[in-house]
Amino acid sequence: MSKALRARQDMEKERETLQAWKERVGQELDRVVAFWMEHSHDQEHGGFFTCLGRDGQLYDDLKYVWLQGRQVWMYCRLYRTFERFHRAQLLDAAKAGGEFLLRYARVAPPSKKCAFVLTRDGRPVKVQRTIFSECFYTMAMDELWRTTGEARYQTEAVEMMDQIVHWVREDASELGRPQLQGAPAVEPMAVPMMLLNLVEQLGEADEGLAGKYAELGDWCARRILQHVQRDGQAVLENVSEDGKELSGCLGRQQNPGHALEAGWFLLRHFIRKGDPELRAHVVDKLLLLPFHSGWDPDHGGLFYFQDADDFCPTQLEWAMKLWWPHSEAMIAFLMGYSDSGDPELLRLFYQVAEYTFCQFRDPEYGEWFGYLSREGKVALTIKGGPFKGCFHVPRCLAMCEEMLGALLSRPAPAPARRGAE
Amino acid sequence: MSKALRARQDMEKERETLQAWKERVGQELDRVVAFWMEHSHDQEHGGFFTCLGRDGQLYDDLKYVWLQGRQVWMYCRLYRTFERFHRAQLLDAAKAGGEFLLRYARVAPPSKKCAFVLTRDGRPVKVQRTIFSECFYTMAMDELWRTTGEARYQTEAVEMMDQIVHWVREDASELGRPQLQGAPAVEPMAVPMMLLNLVEQLGEADEGLAGKYAELGDWCARRILQHVQRDGQAVLENVSEDGKELSGCLGRQQNPGHALEAGWFLLRHFIRKGDPELRAHVVDKLLLLPFHSGWDPDHGGLFYFQDADDFCPTQLEWAMKLWWPHSEAMIAFLMGYSDSGDPELLRLFYQVAEYTFCQFRDPEYGEWFGYLSREGKVALTIKGGPFKGCFHVPRCLAMCEEMLGALLSRPAPAPARRGAE
Repeated sequence: MSKALRARQDMEKERETLQAWKERVGQELDRVVAFWMEHSHDQEHGGFFTCLGRDGQLYDDLKYVWLQGRQVWMYCRLYRTFERFHRAQLLDAAKAGGEFLLRYARVAPPSKKCAFVLTRDGRPVKVQRTIFSECFYTMAMDELWRTTGEARYQTEAVEMMDQIVHWVREDASELGRPQLQGAPAVEPMAVPMMLLNLVEQLGEADEGLAGKYAELGDWCARRILQHVQRDGQAVLENVSEDGKELSGCLGRQQNPGHALEAGWFLLRHFIRKGDPELRAHVVDKLLLLPFHSGWDPDHGGLFYFQDADDFCPTQLEWAMKLWWPHSEAMIAFLMGYSDSGDPELLRLFYQVAEYTFCQFRDPEYGEWFGYLSREGKVALTIKGGPFKGCFHVPRCLAMCEEMLGALLSRPAPAPARRGAE
Repeated sequence: MSKALRARQDMEKERETLQAWKERVGQELDRVVAFWMEHSHDQEHGGFFTCLGRDGQLYDDLKYVWLQGRQVWMYCRLYRTFERFHRAQLLDAAKAGGEFLLRYARVAPPSKKCAFVLTRDGRPVKVQRTIFSECFYTMAMDELWRTTGEARYQTEAVEMMDQIVHWVREDASELGRPQLQGAPAVEPMAVPMMLLNLVEQLGEADEGLAGKYAELGDWCARRILQHVQRDGQAVLENVSEDGKELSGCLGRQQNPGHALEAGWFLLRHFIRKGDPELRAHVVDKLLLLPFHSGWDPDHGGLFYFQDADDFCPTQLEWAMKLWWPHSEAMIAFLMGYSDSGDPELLRLFYQVAEYTFCQFRDPEYGEWFGYLSREGKVALTIKGGPFKGCFHVPRCLAMCEEMLGALLSRPAPAPARRGAE
């Protein structure tokens, strides 16, 4: 067989594998969306139930604001960008969720501070002294605007965004965190990550807002990269505001899935900015490094928490395998491969995707399990809860379906910038 | 063999088993105390390190106020009530811990609100909007008074106690919890439990204070018993302040180890009050019921959390086996047996003690592991951390040694009020 023929055959085989994954991912997306459409809509008050058992049975009717915002965002995104999800039922549920948020999310208007969790009918139960409820509120409003064209949603999104930026960069006092003499000024990686995600969201196909938030986007990227510590050998969840390692467990804490998620946020940012050197840096430090340190060599899957000095983490769930680090890793590696053509990244996508589909997927009732033991056994049978809603799984499946489609529509499987063909 | 002879032989065998456990427990207590004495003392600032790895290695130097207070209490108690622990090194460390608390625990004196965690040199890092730091502060001060005879410690204890009672029964506003419209008025069982424990502590051999807190003790007992719900078929961690079941996960939450701990607090209270009917009720509802619902039939050990309707709990660690529910169960069953003579309670003591010594004990380095997987494998190798210090293990061992000694010093192994001899 000639070299050229063998290369063509390899390429064909690769296309078939990509095609098979595209179908697998697309079918799974349908099943997952069906699960949430069937079980999570509150027809009476609007918004979404997320405390759902294995078969979708409701076990609590509290409404977590993060998860309300995320589901609104997800439904709008699917409605707007996938022909087969351009269904009135999705749009209506998203709008009802958005109206629920507009009416009830803020604890004491005109303050923009949102509750963390509400009763089914919208009364506040708990407030967190962080920015995350407000971030997902912003994502929901921006995507509602893009989907419906109603300007009031965009106004809401931008006003909330500006408030969040004020809390993060100017004055956090309204969040209510006490100033304590022994508490270091910590930057959790989640903060610049979420802000960067919002910058991408609000600036999408909107030159005005992209310009408005351009400096913020660069600031976020710099701040995220400050979490790469120890001469590039570790990604740390928490650093000081000036980018130094903090002492103790807090400073040594690692969360491989979170690093991978930050990785694809950054990769997307630098792809848009066209910076090849930083893209390679992100792949090395926020994709490959956390993956190789975080992957369990005995049972597969990504650990939830690790300690940079290999002490035992104090989080009881440190060795559990959670769904979202795996969905984020799938996105990260497929995005890395789509951009660079490095076959090692495609191989890692397949490795993570195989583990994920084998271990988290529930062939019987749809949607994924969220929480496995270290050994990969289902530890919690719930499909949704206080921190798991209609978000990471369908976002991963939708993004992977799109990226796989884009790869397949190229003349060759991928541009081979580096690697071994 | 005559019936009388067989009964005598059975009794002798029982005494031998009790004697063997007394020795096993006593030796273990020595090893556990040695671990903390060797690794936890901060010679520079006073107080105790509790973030200790398997072999005692320090992995963080934060000082958790709960754990400072508990270790002071434990050391004083051992010094005061065990001849072999009447050692200057224990007393000195307890006093240094007490002085550390006096100097640094309160965040903003003259307010009595204490921090949850301090830096090594005493600067506040976090404050919880609950009463528990203050409760363990009170225990430490009262026991320091009993051990040293210095009146200023008792003054501290009583003043803090009165402040806690004010927060619980009169006005909680200083704790800083926001009043939210959707948040039910919850009573976590921990609150009346801790208060009852303090009533017993402060009133011990002190008629004046016993009298002062007598009504409070009865109030606590009533409040704890309100957590027995569903016609006596379930102990619920959280109920409304007027003793009704709350909706959702919060209302259905169960914690078998916590119920067993509340059980022996109540049992001790009703033994002191001489109420046989309530003692039998406590044994049925707070010892046997949570044990039988909470014991894992597949792998042994007590689950950490359960849902009263058998939904899957949302706590990621719900199926893990923690050290303290097992130490509390050992105390509860041995106390129940000592009081009632019911051989079934002695059998359960043996069952729990065997599991506990097999699974949690570390024959190599002393002190127990704290966190096992559902299957009983060590999940966290730490011996101490933010929530595990020198308290539950030595308290259990010291109390069991005393109770076993008391049983053995009786003419017969135990008064057989009910049961099958």
